[in-house]
Amino acid sequence: MNDRADPVLVEVLRGDWVESRHRGAIAVCDADGATALALGDIEAPVFPRSAVKALQALPLIESGAADRYGLTQAHIALAVASHAGEPIHVEAARAMLAQCGREPNALECGAHWPSSLEAGRALAAAGKTPSALHNNCSGKHAGFVCLACAAGVDPHGYVAPGHYVQREVDRALAEMTGAAIEERHRAIDGCAIPTYAIPLRALALAFARFGTGAGLSATRAAAAARIREAVAAHPHMVAGAGKFDTVVTQILRERAFVKTGAEGVYCAAFPERGFGVAIKCQDGASRAAEVAMAAMIERFVALTPAERAALRPRLSPALTNWNGRVVGGLRAAEGLADA
Amino acid sequence: MNDRADPVLVEVLRGDWVESRHRGAIAVCDADGATALALGDIEAPVFPRSAVKALQALPLIESGAADRYGLTQAHIALAVASHAGEPIHVEAARAMLAQCGREPNALECGAHWPSSLEAGRALAAAGKTPSALHNNCSGKHAGFVCLACAAGVDPHGYVAPGHYVQREVDRALAEMTGAAIEERHRAIDGCAIPTYAIPLRALALAFARFGTGAGLSATRAAAAARIREAVAAHPHMVAGAGKFDTVVTQILRERAFVKTGAEGVYCAAFPERGFGVAIKCQDGASRAAEVAMAAMIERFVALTPAERAALRPRLSPALTNWNGRVVGGLRAAEGLADA
Repeated sequence: MNDRADPVLVEVLRGDWVESRHRGAIAVCDADGATALALGDIEAPVFPRSAVKALQALPLIESGAADRYGLTQAHIALAVASHAGEPIHVEAARAMLAQCGREPNALECGAHWPSSLEAGRALAAAGKTPSALHNNCSGKHAGFVCLACAAGVDPHGYVAPGHYVQREVDRALAEMTGAAIEERHRAIDGCAIPTYAIPLRALALAFARFGTGAGLSATRAAAAARIREAVAAHPHMVAGAGKFDTVVTQILRERAFVKTGAEGVYCAAFPERGFGVAIKCQDGASRAAEVAMAAMIERFVALTPAERAALRPRLSPALTNWNGRVVGGLRAAEGLADA
Repeated sequence: MNDRADPVLVEVLRGDWVESRHRGAIAVCDADGATALALGDIEAPVFPRSAVKALQALPLIESGAADRYGLTQAHIALAVASHAGEPIHVEAARAMLAQCGREPNALECGAHWPSSLEAGRALAAAGKTPSALHNNCSGKHAGFVCLACAAGVDPHGYVAPGHYVQREVDRALAEMTGAAIEERHRAIDGCAIPTYAIPLRALALAFARFGTGAGLSATRAAAAARIREAVAAHPHMVAGAGKFDTVVTQILRERAFVKTGAEGVYCAAFPERGFGVAIKCQDGASRAAEVAMAAMIERFVALTPAERAALRPRLSPALTNWNGRVVGGLRAAEGLADA
C-alpha cells in the first residue's frame, strides 16, 4: 500500500463537468497468473474484506458440513453474501443456525441496522431493533458456526485468529491466492473476523481458479462450482433488492461471479474467459468500484445486446436530484470498458 | 477540473495498514487574497454545493426579508443549514414558511428521508413518510420563499435560473467570490437550484470576507456577522445531533464557521486569523473532507487544550466494528494539521 497515485477509474459528472474522480487499481488474470489487465499498483497488499467471502466459504463445503446439516443452495448463497438485512436473509441465517442446532446468539458478528433502508424502516415501524441476524455477514457467520459444529469444535470464539474455523478459512485463502496469510498482514474486519492484506494480483489469480477450477483439487473445484451455482441460482440471497451483485447475477447468472467488499474492493470470476478480477478504489468508494466492475464485465464478458442493455445503468449510473431530474452520472474512465 | 493527482489529505487505517487514501485540494487565504495554504489544484472550478449556503443566504438578510417576517436567529441558522431532518428542523422550516404566509408545498427542493437515520426510523415507526420539509435544504428553500415574498415576487419557480431569487443569490455569490457565476459553469444541485463551479481559491477568499467583513459594504458585513452569530448561537440547527458542523460549532462558536457541502467540499471562516478555507476531496468523500477541515482548525485556530481535546475525535476518528472494538481510524496526512 504505497503512496503512488493510481489512475482515475471512474468520473462523477454534474452537468457537463467532472465533479469528482475515483482512482484505483485493477488486476485481471487467468488461472496461470497471466495478466490480461494491470492498472495501477496491483502488487500492493489490499484488505479484500467481504469480496473473498466465496473463498472463505470453501471449507464449509469441502468439510462436508454443508451436506451434514442439509444446507440448501440458498443457504450457501447466503454464506457468501453481504446481504441487505431483508426478512428473507434474516430468516435464512436463522434457519442455517437451526440446522446445526444453534440459536442466533451463537453469532459473533455484532448487530447493525439493515443496509436496506427499506428493511430498516420496516423494522423500526414494527417497533424492533436489529440483531446479529441482520448483520450483512450473518450468513457467512452462520456457515462458520456450521463448520465448527460439524467438526465437533465449540463454535464459541470462532471469530478469533487461531480458532479452528479461522485456521480453515486462512488455509483456503492461502491456497487460493498463493499469498502470505500471516499475522503481519492481519487486521480486524467489520464483522470481527481477521482480514488479511493481499495483493490484487493474487486475488485475481484466486478468482480465476475459483471460476474455472484450474489448478485446484477435485474436491475444491467441486466446492467452488457448487458456490458459483448456488449464487447464480439465488442472486437475491447474495446481496438484496437493487444491489449491484444481485442485479448483475440476475442478468448473467453463472457467466459472472461478482462480489463486493468494503472500502472499494470488488472481486469477480468470468469463467468463460477463465479470468479472475480484483479491483481496489484507492479512496474506498463502493460507487466507483461498482462502475469499474461493470466496465470489466463490458470488456471481458461476451455480452448479448440484451445483456449489455441491462447492464448499462450499472456502467453509467445516472444521478438524480430529489425531484427526480437527472443532474449527472458516473462513468468509467475513457477506454476502461474497451477491449 | 483537470486530471492531475492532488496530494493525499487523509488516510484510512485498518490495524497498522493504510487501507484507503483520499486526495484533494485545500485553499486557505485572507480577505486580500493572500494564500496561507495552497495544496493541490486550487484554481480548478469546483461545485461548492451546500458549502456556500451562508453566502446564498445573504440576500435574505440584506433585503430586509428576514426582518420583515420576524425570522429568529434559529431560523437564520436553519437557512444556511444542511440539516438532519430532525423534528426541530422540520418544525422550524414550517414556521419560516408560515411567517411569510406560505405552506410547505411552496418548497421546490423535493423530499428525501432524513439524513439522521434515527429521525428516519422514528418517522417510519410513526407510519409517516418524508416531505420536502425533511429535505436537508428545507431551511435554505424556506429562506428563498421568504426572499421572494418580501419582494412581492411569486415564489413559484424560485429554483430556476433567472428567477428573482436565483438572480439575487447569483449576485451575492459573484460579489463574494469574484468568480464568474455564469451559465457555462452551471449545473443543478441536489435540491434543484443552480450550482456554479468556482475555484477553491475564490471560495476561500469569499469566506475570508464572510468571516471578517473586510472589503464588504456595511450592509453585507452586518448580514454576514448576523449569519455567523445565528449559527454560533444555534449549532444544532445548522446540521444535527453528532454532525461535524454542529459539534465543531458547539465547541468553537463564533471562532470558526464551518459548512459542509456534498461531494467532499468544505468551506470555513476563521475570523480571528482572518482566514477563509475551501477544501475539495477529489473523490467526493465527506469523511475525508471532515478530517481535513479538522486539520485546518488544528492548524489555523488558536485552540485551548480543552478545545483541542474536544476536537480530537474529529481529527482522528476511530473506526469500530459491529462489536464496538476499535479496528482502525482516519488521520490527516502527515504535516497537514501542523502550523
